[in-house]
Amino acid sequence: MGRRDRLKRKLNQPIVVEAPKTLDYSGFKFEITFRDTKSRARLGRLTTPHGTIETPNYIFCGTKASIKNLSPQHMRDAKTDIILANTYHLMIQPGPEVIERAGGLHKFMQWHGPMMTDSGGFQIFAMGHGGVADEIKGRNRNTNTRSLMGITEEGAKFKSYWNGDTLKLTPEASIDIQRRMGADIIYQFDECTPYHVERDYTATAMERSHRWGDRSLVEFEKGHNGRQALYGIVSGGIYDDLRTISCDWTKDRPFFGTAIGDCLGGSTEEFYEIVGKCMPQIHPDRPVHLLGIGAIRDVFSCVRMGIDTFDCVSPTRIARHGWALTRGGEGRINIRNAPFRDDQEPLDPSLDISASRDFSRSYIHHLFKAGELLGTQLVAQHNVAMINRLLREVRAAVKNGTLDALEKEWLGG
Amino acid sequence: MGRRDRLKRKLNQPIVVEAPKTLDYSGFKFEITFRDTKSRARLGRLTTPHGTIETPNYIFCGTKASIKNLSPQHMRDAKTDIILANTYHLMIQPGPEVIERAGGLHKFMQWHGPMMTDSGGFQIFAMGHGGVADEIKGRNRNTNTRSLMGITEEGAKFKSYWNGDTLKLTPEASIDIQRRMGADIIYQFDECTPYHVERDYTATAMERSHRWGDRSLVEFEKGHNGRQALYGIVSGGIYDDLRTISCDWTKDRPFFGTAIGDCLGGSTEEFYEIVGKCMPQIHPDRPVHLLGIGAIRDVFSCVRMGIDTFDCVSPTRIARHGWALTRGGEGRINIRNAPFRDDQEPLDPSLDISASRDFSRSYIHHLFKAGELLGTQLVAQHNVAMINRLLREVRAAVKNGTLDALEKEWLGG
Repeated sequence: MGRRDRLKRKLNQPIVVEAPKTLDYSGFKFEITFRDTKSRARLGRLTTPHGTIETPNYIFCGTKASIKNLSPQHMRDAKTDIILANTYHLMIQPGPEVIERAGGLHKFMQWHGPMMTDSGGFQIFAMGHGGVADEIKGRNRNTNTRSLMGITEEGAKFKSYWNGDTLKLTPEASIDIQRRMGADIIYQFDECTPYHVERDYTATAMERSHRWGDRSLVEFEKGHNGRQALYGIVSGGIYDDLRTISCDWTKDRPFFGTAIGDCLGGSTEEFYEIVGKCMPQIHPDRPVHLLGIGAIRDVFSCVRMGIDTFDCVSPTRIARHGWALTRGGEGRINIRNAPFRDDQEPLDPSLDISASRDFSRSYIHHLFKAGELLGTQLVAQHNVAMINRLLREVRAAVKNGTLDALEKEWLGG
Repeated sequence: MGRRDRLKRKLNQPIVVEAPKTLDYSGFKFEITFRDTKSRARLGRLTTPHGTIETPNYIFCGTKASIKNLSPQHMRDAKTDIILANTYHLMIQPGPEVIERAGGLHKFMQWHGPMMTDSGGFQIFAMGHGGVADEIKGRNRNTNTRSLMGITEEGAKFKSYWNGDTLKLTPEASIDIQRRMGADIIYQFDECTPYHVERDYTATAMERSHRWGDRSLVEFEKGHNGRQALYGIVSGGIYDDLRTISCDWTKDRPFFGTAIGDCLGGSTEEFYEIVGKCMPQIHPDRPVHLLGIGAIRDVFSCVRMGIDTFDCVSPTRIARHGWALTRGGEGRINIRNAPFRDDQEPLDPSLDISASRDFSRSYIHHLFKAGELLGTQLVAQHNVAMINRLLREVRAAVKNGTLDALEKEWLGG
């Protein structure tokens, strides 16, 4: 047997490592400050080396180390507490070495508050598989479809959308890159399976993701300096028994937080059911993040199930198509529509940023019509401010037991 | 002779009106506060209903009622005193009626400082003719070439780039639109001739532009409410004797200010010669604007000739291609270039805006590479701040007699 064959065999044999039993997260803290009596909703305080945020909260996507067309000042003015960046995109451009030499992501982006990076897995797998997950999660399927070239025990091979190079991501590499970028909250490497695969595939992938999680923990421990906290990911797709196994697996590992990941089904009902079944089985004292979900309706539903943090690209993505979020009514308006041509009202005068308060809908309508980028800039900042207000109001409503009433104000009904 | 023929003949006969002898500009003031002894350079203070600016100064182009991807707050933070918008673009989208219903351009754009609009002529003629003027003036020739359908005594017919509609602009319409939009400083309607035409054409066009100027004055007087000031335009192309006639014509009319317009030749030398010859013949007590010119070298040269205000799209246009202005060196760097990949220095830490001071060149380089719009936003604001600093320093240097030394600092030498 040649070297190549030995290697190939080795790669497809389970790589089993022993995860550390404990990890010192003394730079971090998660305190649950209030529990609802009628639901699993809870309030918390999540402390990181770059600041403390109240939960439930919303993590805005700065995919390529930039929130689309918004500066950190725009984000702060819109009362943003925490943002994320995507390892997959940043490993391709500018590369982790550039960010490391710049002193890490916080300094590179000039965002001085709490920050999270994902493991890179989601983009490789969900986009590479071309599955349903990206639809549910509102991700764009057009790029990178079929960029995934192969999954082995070691990790994933994929084609760079940048230059077609073959790239490889392993649990060790993902943790190494995330460490070098230096976000506060980082993620284990996992596979995100598509909706249309067989149960067997999901089970095999989950078991491999668990081994990848253990390898992530081992790699994390090596470089751990107390400035980062690692989240584990519950996978298992749409299968209750697999989800249970995965919940138990994360509970048994020294992750700081838990994320619900993998395929969340083909409909909102299915997704709510999966989250609802997972939540009682997840470590009760750790913060829980729901990966890639964040429509207003989902925030209400999932806060009730006990979710602490959300992330979704939609607030800034829909802004580029003219959608401005509203409190009540249809939940959003499209500023490009004709009725706004002469509408002298601002988007929402009760938000204290210029984008929402000072400019008329007529002006923003004109900016979109004229192809002026200031239009998307204003609507994007407005949407961020709206979502931050939503989460502020949700936290207050959990405390006051008025979440149902608040949901009606936002979504009608 | 049918009705149509009578009309046609009438349109090509000179339409002569008697311009008002005086106009009350009591809402405005232009004081010359200092004169250089070695050149025609001067300092002034230009008061408008929306504030007072020091001159020499620079008017930034908000072509379609928006400075490309910058908000009014960005412009204020970059210490901008005055901006302009283009009548040609705004008459097409959103239309003057929308801006009027919004309460005028200031309110529409949320720019509360001094503002200028041009007459719309430049875009119709320079782009329509497809001449050299747009090159000299750094305008984009690709759009609207041959959109000009015809010039009659009455005005100009052109094709809308928006929907192909045939539109007409006359002196009366231009003034009416500018009045409804409500900028502080507005312009007579004139023809901007191309470089390659015969002297006869330039002379005929100039005479017609003078008649259009008189018609502009008559129309202006009708609606004059003291909130706007009208500038006359010196035309005559590259011909000294025609320029002299045009200087005299503007001097004899009750314009508040004078602009040097029309074709300024085929080279920088020719353009400096034309401006240099005009300046001593222009009304000495009125503010002088140089239309569409504003490279750093031109600012130094033309301030010495007595120009009070400049305008040019270049600070924000070059930003979109990655060019960031520098004080000294080559005058600009292209942030997309490889040497900036790991450059941890900011664009210019001595400018007190975040765009210039806080973000590394490495980060901005990444933003351009990754196609992130925040990159152009940061560089555009930096360029605006640089130009405003240039003009602040130019004003101080005129006062101190150190303009030559300052020019060397900015441009080398």
